[in-house]
Amino acid sequence: MVNYSKDNLDRTFAALVDPTRRAILARLEREESLSVSELARPFAIKLPAVMKHLDVLSDARLITRSKTGRTVAVRLSPAPMREAMEWLRRYERFWAPRLDRLAAYAEAKETALRKQAKP
Amino acid sequence: MVNYSKDNLDRTFAALVDPTRRAILARLEREESLSVSELARPFAIKLPAVMKHLDVLSDARLITRSKTGRTVAVRLSPAPMREAMEWLRRYERFWAPRLDRLAAYAEAKETALRKQAKP
Repeated sequence: MVNYSKDNLDRTFAALVDPTRRAILARLEREESLSVSELARPFAIKLPAVMKHLDVLSDARLITRSKTGRTVAVRLSPAPMREAMEWLRRYERFWAPRLDRLAAYAEAKETALRKQAKP
Repeated sequence: MVNYSKDNLDRTFAALVDPTRRAILARLEREESLSVSELARPFAIKLPAVMKHLDVLSDARLITRSKTGRTVAVRLSPAPMREAMEWLRRYERFWAPRLDRLAAYAEAKETALRKQAKP
């Protein structure tokens, strides 16, 4: 892990702190592409505030923006979230010991089936 | 999802922004319990700065602190990270389509084995 990756994680988590930014990402998860005004519509904040949130998300490389004429299309760029999730995944064992047990069960089941298959 | 949970996520992600705080959590993932001075040792920052980071982590309910005599034992309290991970999990489909294929493969394999088992 180099500093580059550390900085990325800083930026990703910082972008995810704000509930409006998380809501923007959640909408972009459901829609291929949205214009800035479409994105702004459900929020009770003014367009410049939405634009600032989009700047933060863009700096964190969580969205891409492309301009066609006067319309800016915003798309999700989820790759940095993968790294954030991988970071969190190491703590998964604390709340998901059942996953290990499930894997052990599936393995035992397959071994049993294999034995049946080759009598 | 009520505001309570939204605030929790805000706090969790905000706590994870700082690399020193992430390093503290990573150390507590490997050790059952550490004293404040043990936690502070590997960092190039002063003890009061470490204490401030511990306050942020404690406010986010990511650690617990218990005092015995003059020693404060710090422990990981990973539950809030689960919620953060669940939030990120919905984006997993963007980078892990292979997981679906893997599951489909495992299912096909089991069906084939079942057929062999019951001729």
